[in-house]
Amino acid sequence: MIALDRCCIHTITTKPWALPEAVEKYAAAGVKGISVWQNATEGIGPKHAGEIIRGAGLEIVSYVRGGFFPHTSSAGRAQAIDHNKKLLEEAATLGAPMIVLVCGASPDQSLDTSRNQIREGIEAILPLAEKLNVKLAIEPLHPMYAADRSAINTLGQANDMAELFKSAHVGVAVDVYHLWWDQDLEKQIARCGANDNLFAYHVCDWKVNTIDLLNDRGLMGEGCIDLKKIRSWVEATGFNGFCEVEIFSNIHWAKDQDIFLKEITEAFLQHV
Amino acid sequence: MIALDRCCIHTITTKPWALPEAVEKYAAAGVKGISVWQNATEGIGPKHAGEIIRGAGLEIVSYVRGGFFPHTSSAGRAQAIDHNKKLLEEAATLGAPMIVLVCGASPDQSLDTSRNQIREGIEAILPLAEKLNVKLAIEPLHPMYAADRSAINTLGQANDMAELFKSAHVGVAVDVYHLWWDQDLEKQIARCGANDNLFAYHVCDWKVNTIDLLNDRGLMGEGCIDLKKIRSWVEATGFNGFCEVEIFSNIHWAKDQDIFLKEITEAFLQHV
Repeated sequence: MIALDRCCIHTITTKPWALPEAVEKYAAAGVKGISVWQNATEGIGPKHAGEIIRGAGLEIVSYVRGGFFPHTSSAGRAQAIDHNKKLLEEAATLGAPMIVLVCGASPDQSLDTSRNQIREGIEAILPLAEKLNVKLAIEPLHPMYAADRSAINTLGQANDMAELFKSAHVGVAVDVYHLWWDQDLEKQIARCGANDNLFAYHVCDWKVNTIDLLNDRGLMGEGCIDLKKIRSWVEATGFNGFCEVEIFSNIHWAKDQDIFLKEITEAFLQHV
Repeated sequence: MIALDRCCIHTITTKPWALPEAVEKYAAAGVKGISVWQNATEGIGPKHAGEIIRGAGLEIVSYVRGGFFPHTSSAGRAQAIDHNKKLLEEAATLGAPMIVLVCGASPDQSLDTSRNQIREGIEAILPLAEKLNVKLAIEPLHPMYAADRSAINTLGQANDMAELFKSAHVGVAVDVYHLWWDQDLEKQIARCGANDNLFAYHVCDWKVNTIDLLNDRGLMGEGCIDLKKIRSWVEATGFNGFCEVEIFSNIHWAKDQDIFLKEITEAFLQHV
């Protein structure tokens, strides 16, 4: 049985709420962690956002999201690197220990080429990440996002990439939505942990009749992912960090978010 | 440069056309092969459907689709096996040399369990397939269909399954839509060919902004799949069979199908 003090929520999950409201509600519900999407700090700034969050007693788990390194033009790639450096500075100002990388892909070039550009992008920002002590978590994305969101589509590929750097500041974010189908998942989670690369664990659910490729994720228990089994694999590595609830859902965003938050905490206790 | 005499079209691709019309139009367009979906024979029967097709000079490439073996109940699994035997009889009557298997999955059990039930299902129908001389082509489906359509989501898994049987009547259907993202694709195509298991090759395209998980496939050239590269891998195994155009698309089905057929043959010559 998992307790709510392992629960972190991504601000995007309750998108209709501005950051101060989300922070107040999460804390009141007994949630202990928050992962901050960049849009949530707009108009507030990362420094003040960090103060609001710490003032409510919440722990900042990650800043979301960097990456998107591949581009067919070198100018596009340089711009992406600059943008990621800016995000690292923001993460440090916010007080986030980690940035999640949605690595990117370009439909106008091969996935191999995109993967090379991802490696180059991480190489280019790693010195700043180390200097600021902000970790980089490579998040493999579901193969249905291979066209333009990520050329890293399995945990095996994310492990390969992370291990190249031999840095305590480069690891992996494991998200059940992207990875649940993979026959190698247990093995790759063990490998990730054995290399000290398991930086983050994200939960939601895969709805059997998914109607939208981006914004129809399920609340835990609404779908077919065996969350308890996957968490047991994650914890077998020694991971005892937050389980981060990250749900993009037009259906859930359309609800009263107080009701949704109550559903989240109940689902967390029951299904994660 | 590929010629139209390597072009086969799945009847579902031009769903608004009944079989006799599709046959007449395909033949007139210079297409030489047809893969027949079960619904296309309804009201005609497999025997007469076969006569219509051969009468127009078209070759029947496959009958679509068997499979869907996994169920949580043994009664459901037995029913699936019976249904597949009926499909095999229909394929033999039609004159189709092969059935495509969409293997199935159940969201109420693990993918491992579903894969075991798929193996048992194929075992149960293989004697009849051999007797009728109808091949079984295991089609790995994209991971986004793992909840309820297929627990076999990579070519590696399909190869594993096919190789278990050591039968000339069990092999694999390679469909670019399901497999294009896989970093191991070239290697797994070579393995499939080396084991004489490459039974079929299906083409369409992956649209960058896919709006529907089922019925938004792209015409070749509309998306980001490097079709010529994948065909080169397929042909490096010695495969010189049909390239089967299989497109499910609400957008294309809504068009004048004569115009769509012209687009298909042009796209085939230009992009496959």
